[in-house]
Amino acid sequence: MQPSETPIETTFDVTGIGNAIVDVISHESEAFLEEFQLIKESMALVDEKTAIDLYNSMSPTIQTSGGSAANTMSGIASLGGSSGYIGKVRNDHLGEVFSHDIHAAGVHYSVSPAEDGPPTARSMIIVTPDGARTMNTFLGISTTLYKEDLDVGLIEGSKVLYCEGYIWDIEATKDTIRSAIAIAKDAGRKISFTLSDSFCVMRHHQDWIDLVNGPIDILFGNEEEIQALSGYETFREAINWIKGRVEIACLTRAEKGSVIVSQGETIEIEAKPVQQIIDSTGAGDLYAAGFLFGYTRGLDLATCGRIGSIAASEIIVHTGARPLSPLQEVISKELYP
Amino acid sequence: MQPSETPIETTFDVTGIGNAIVDVISHESEAFLEEFQLIKESMALVDEKTAIDLYNSMSPTIQTSGGSAANTMSGIASLGGSSGYIGKVRNDHLGEVFSHDIHAAGVHYSVSPAEDGPPTARSMIIVTPDGARTMNTFLGISTTLYKEDLDVGLIEGSKVLYCEGYIWDIEATKDTIRSAIAIAKDAGRKISFTLSDSFCVMRHHQDWIDLVNGPIDILFGNEEEIQALSGYETFREAINWIKGRVEIACLTRAEKGSVIVSQGETIEIEAKPVQQIIDSTGAGDLYAAGFLFGYTRGLDLATCGRIGSIAASEIIVHTGARPLSPLQEVISKELYP
Repeated sequence: MQPSETPIETTFDVTGIGNAIVDVISHESEAFLEEFQLIKESMALVDEKTAIDLYNSMSPTIQTSGGSAANTMSGIASLGGSSGYIGKVRNDHLGEVFSHDIHAAGVHYSVSPAEDGPPTARSMIIVTPDGARTMNTFLGISTTLYKEDLDVGLIEGSKVLYCEGYIWDIEATKDTIRSAIAIAKDAGRKISFTLSDSFCVMRHHQDWIDLVNGPIDILFGNEEEIQALSGYETFREAINWIKGRVEIACLTRAEKGSVIVSQGETIEIEAKPVQQIIDSTGAGDLYAAGFLFGYTRGLDLATCGRIGSIAASEIIVHTGARPLSPLQEVISKELYP
Repeated sequence: MQPSETPIETTFDVTGIGNAIVDVISHESEAFLEEFQLIKESMALVDEKTAIDLYNSMSPTIQTSGGSAANTMSGIASLGGSSGYIGKVRNDHLGEVFSHDIHAAGVHYSVSPAEDGPPTARSMIIVTPDGARTMNTFLGISTTLYKEDLDVGLIEGSKVLYCEGYIWDIEATKDTIRSAIAIAKDAGRKISFTLSDSFCVMRHHQDWIDLVNGPIDILFGNEEEIQALSGYETFREAINWIKGRVEIACLTRAEKGSVIVSQGETIEIEAKPVQQIIDSTGAGDLYAAGFLFGYTRGLDLATCGRIGSIAASEIIVHTGARPLSPLQEVISKELYP
């Protein structure tokens, strides 16, 4: 592990750990999903050749940094919070793009780019006319994020550790996350975790049940993901199941808003309506950013959820999963008009 | 010059020639322009080091193919027309991005990527909150587009040759354009030209006066550009000056619409109103695409201008200068609702 670059007394709001990915996004018809047998709104892992083949069939693309936890950390910084990020890129063009964008967002990021090995991860994201996104991710070098890459001081010095479920797909990075969770717990920090994808939930079902019954304090997931984890077919049953297992569960339901479940209360938050959803990529990531920004400031849960909804609404009206406008200004206007 | 890959009997609507550029776009405050002493809404040529320095100071970016003539050719293809493109990239990551995007748009493009020399051109584009774009372009390998790169058959087989004024900044590519114009004229084709940028007009004033008095049939430019070329301070005087010098002049005025000046008539076209301009990059390029799409179908000038306005309105409501929705569908809905 890296020596503590950041002294332990420096307190960040949140540090996130995840796959460092550049998104390659195109807008396609529904027929494109059928032609390539892609499961709408899911994330599929693909090898480099499949990624290239798919790219060659895609319409003109927009390339911009992504990665679930990296989007969330960029969102927290854009809200005016302090955040750190742990994830790995290669020293190639996409690696430079990722590093530029996360530094430019104001996120603390100090993992050295790998000098050799597979290229920087990229996700081919197909956005259909309804704004839904379907992802095909080549993980590349991001699968080699080892314990040695963890900045212990950064994790110890952050109020909350945020872990991306996607990272569980690789044995090596799973161990890295477990180490990160142990470091944060030992330092008395909160552990938050996002379920990422319902297929991902099914792949790691028992592990994640153990995490939910164990170290996780704050859980993020959408309707399908919490149903997959709980094993219940209705959202209401899934809510009852999660209550008491974690301190707080934030469950998102797209245009139906979100539900925040804590031991004392269950709060329904309305989605902020938008004129047209252009690209839903990053909606869940930015909801988590808004919630954690509020949480680390000690705001009440309803306000935390409202900030999440507003942050998510900014991201879905344009292509790409990083905020185009400083969220700090967006939130000020919405909360204190 | 390349042997005729495309047999002369194959007729394309339009072939464009220009600098093959990938756009690196960020949204910044007005203060950013002041800090870096950038002239708002202009295009400045910068060296590689300045481009990197600027990139390092920019907010998170979106990377997507650009290049004025390439945007126009992509627009024509998106409208359902047939177009070709001539411009040069390196065999590097940005070169692959450019080649992918122009092929994916359906444009005929067969210039081989250079195996050595400077990297693919990129333009650092700063978009301010009013949607205005300020460009800083490192031309890289695009300055080495030589006569030998011209696909003679493609030019001879296209109803219209479209030349980008920006390309005049380099001595070598200026000669290439002159050769392309000669090939098209010899084949009895129409020559169209865009003035690109008012500073560019001033740099090449006498050359362009000669072009307007000579081979150019269809001229594109905005209010400032035609005033700079004509030497008149008012738009009305500039219109009178251009009348009769070219067959058709299409003069754009942002939200005030456009004016089409031909020998017989002067037609005012309204801009298609949009709710909010997010990024004006490519507005003029897509206006030219719409106009030339109509022109090569023999439509009346007012309809050509209207298609131009609709195409431009699609491009300014999102970040990036390439259409996100198939323009063919957009136009069908607007013209035949």
